Amino acid sequence: MSEPDAKRVKTNDDAPYELIYWPKIPGRGEFVRLLFEEAGVPYVDSAKTGEEAVPTVLNLMAPDNKGDDSNPPSFACPALKHGDLHLSQTPNILLYLGPKLGLAPTEGNGIYHINQIVLTILDGLSNEVHETHHPVSVSDYYEVQKPEAKRRAKSFIEERLPKFLTYIQRVLDGKASGDGPWLYGGKLTYADLVLFQGMDGTEYAFPKTMKKMRESGKYDGAFKLYDTVKERPNIKNYLASDRRSDYSDGIWRHYPELEEE
Amino acid sequence: MSEPDAKRVKTNDDAPYELIYWPKIPGRGEFVRLLFEEAGVPYVDSAKTGEEAVPTVLNLMAPDNKGDDSNPPSFACPALKHGDLHLSQTPNILLYLGPKLGLAPTEGNGIYHINQIVLTILDGLSNEVHETHHPVSVSDYYEVQKPEAKRRAKSFIEERLPKFLTYIQRVLDGKASGDGPWLYGGKLTYADLVLFQGMDGTEYAFPKTMKKMRESGKYDGAFKLYDTVKERPNIKNYLASDRRSDYSDGIWRHYPELEEE
Repeated sequence: MSEPDAKRVKTNDDAPYELIYWPKIPGRGEFVRLLFEEAGVPYVDSAKTGEEAVPTVLNLMAPDNKGDDSNPPSFACPALKHGDLHLSQTPNILLYLGPKLGLAPTEGNGIYHINQIVLTILDGLSNEVHETHHPVSVSDYYEVQKPEAKRRAKSFIEERLPKFLTYIQRVLDGKASGDGPWLYGGKLTYADLVLFQGMDGTEYAFPKTMKKMRESGKYDGAFKLYDTVKERPNIKNYLASDRRSDYSDGIWRHYPELEEE
Repeated sequence: MSEPDAKRVKTNDDAPYELIYWPKIPGRGEFVRLLFEEAGVPYVDSAKTGEEAVPTVLNLMAPDNKGDDSNPPSFACPALKHGDLHLSQTPNILLYLGPKLGLAPTEGNGIYHINQIVLTILDGLSNEVHETHHPVSVSDYYEVQKPEAKRRAKSFIEERLPKFLTYIQRVLDGKASGDGPWLYGGKLTYADLVLFQGMDGTEYAFPKTMKKMRESGKYDGAFKLYDTVKERPNIKNYLASDRRSDYSDGIWRHYPELEEE
């Protein structure tokens, strides 16, 4: 078997990190921000560049953007620039950053276990939450798909969310999670930050439901981990800063009617 | 910054590969199978173990399955066993296998580019196709969500599918794809196999639509790549064998009413 050549892309580890994401919402960009914030590593955030913020995102996804000599184009944001390297797809950016920022092992197979957990959290607490308010058309307004959203939200609240939280609890109860509140290997990894953000966003979208989940006592490990991450000094400082955007019309939206009986 | 310990999981590269997936459908397991088949590497396929096939999957996802000392549990299948290592999540399994099977670079940042492209293909031609027949409840029958499925399918056919195929064409037209029909670096990688399966499944589900897409001439590179992969000797041999399952009630389903005008 011949092996494809590794691409020669420079990634001077001292190069500045630049995150490209929509302004004014936490969204999927937040998963990336939390890694930088926890690690205390500076990054440029395109969302905070004023008038340039939206054009930067639109250029990323433009039909005539075919990437460059060494980087394929991006389908959507978030995207990351690090030196000459351009990456997109949330779990892919996290996979790249985790080991560099001390939030995942730099050798061995642990990174695949962390990626597995992260992909599952993103499915359950990000992608499927988005589906609750846009079940029949991604591009149409919520207002034209409210009855369908109500059904999808019912399915999410009653079946999918408990199923995903049960999985998280299985991970935490398993031996591979190691000691302490963490998901993997007895130490903080970026999977813990991803879980925090997924639960935080889901709590914003479905506050009554998440309160019930917490009070059920079935997912104590998951909520303890959420609380632990929220109190970490760098995260606490970040959440109180103006770098953290308020939730609004992104992935996690609060439509009270979606969790009424 | 402290770095989490790399987990000490043995992965003797000579250990046999075992795929765990539902029997009788191609499904997400197919993305994994195509890597083994193209590489000519033997693998055990739990789907082909007769009476053991379904219990093997159910055990993987059982509420009391918490993984083992070194492996976290799986949320769903496909899963891969390789020696003492257990992995799940489709793009994660592919990420692990790609370099080992000569279908991705073993060094440099190319693997992140390939992962980026693969995650996008899986979103567009696998996950979003599943949503077309299950837009309001994953666990209910298609029959109770037909009107909603019709709307979701319309959005998929008219907006999402062209958008994803346009992205694939952008990748192919970009310089980072290199020479030849391939998505990345001028050589076959597992991203090409993933695209083949995504397009093949989507063609089964929406044959009229995919015919129109092909005839539009807008995505010639994508269809040329599809045709090229289909004719590779190992793939051609596999597709004609009884190891390849027929499509039926999996991710890619053919409900003719979903693409009627």
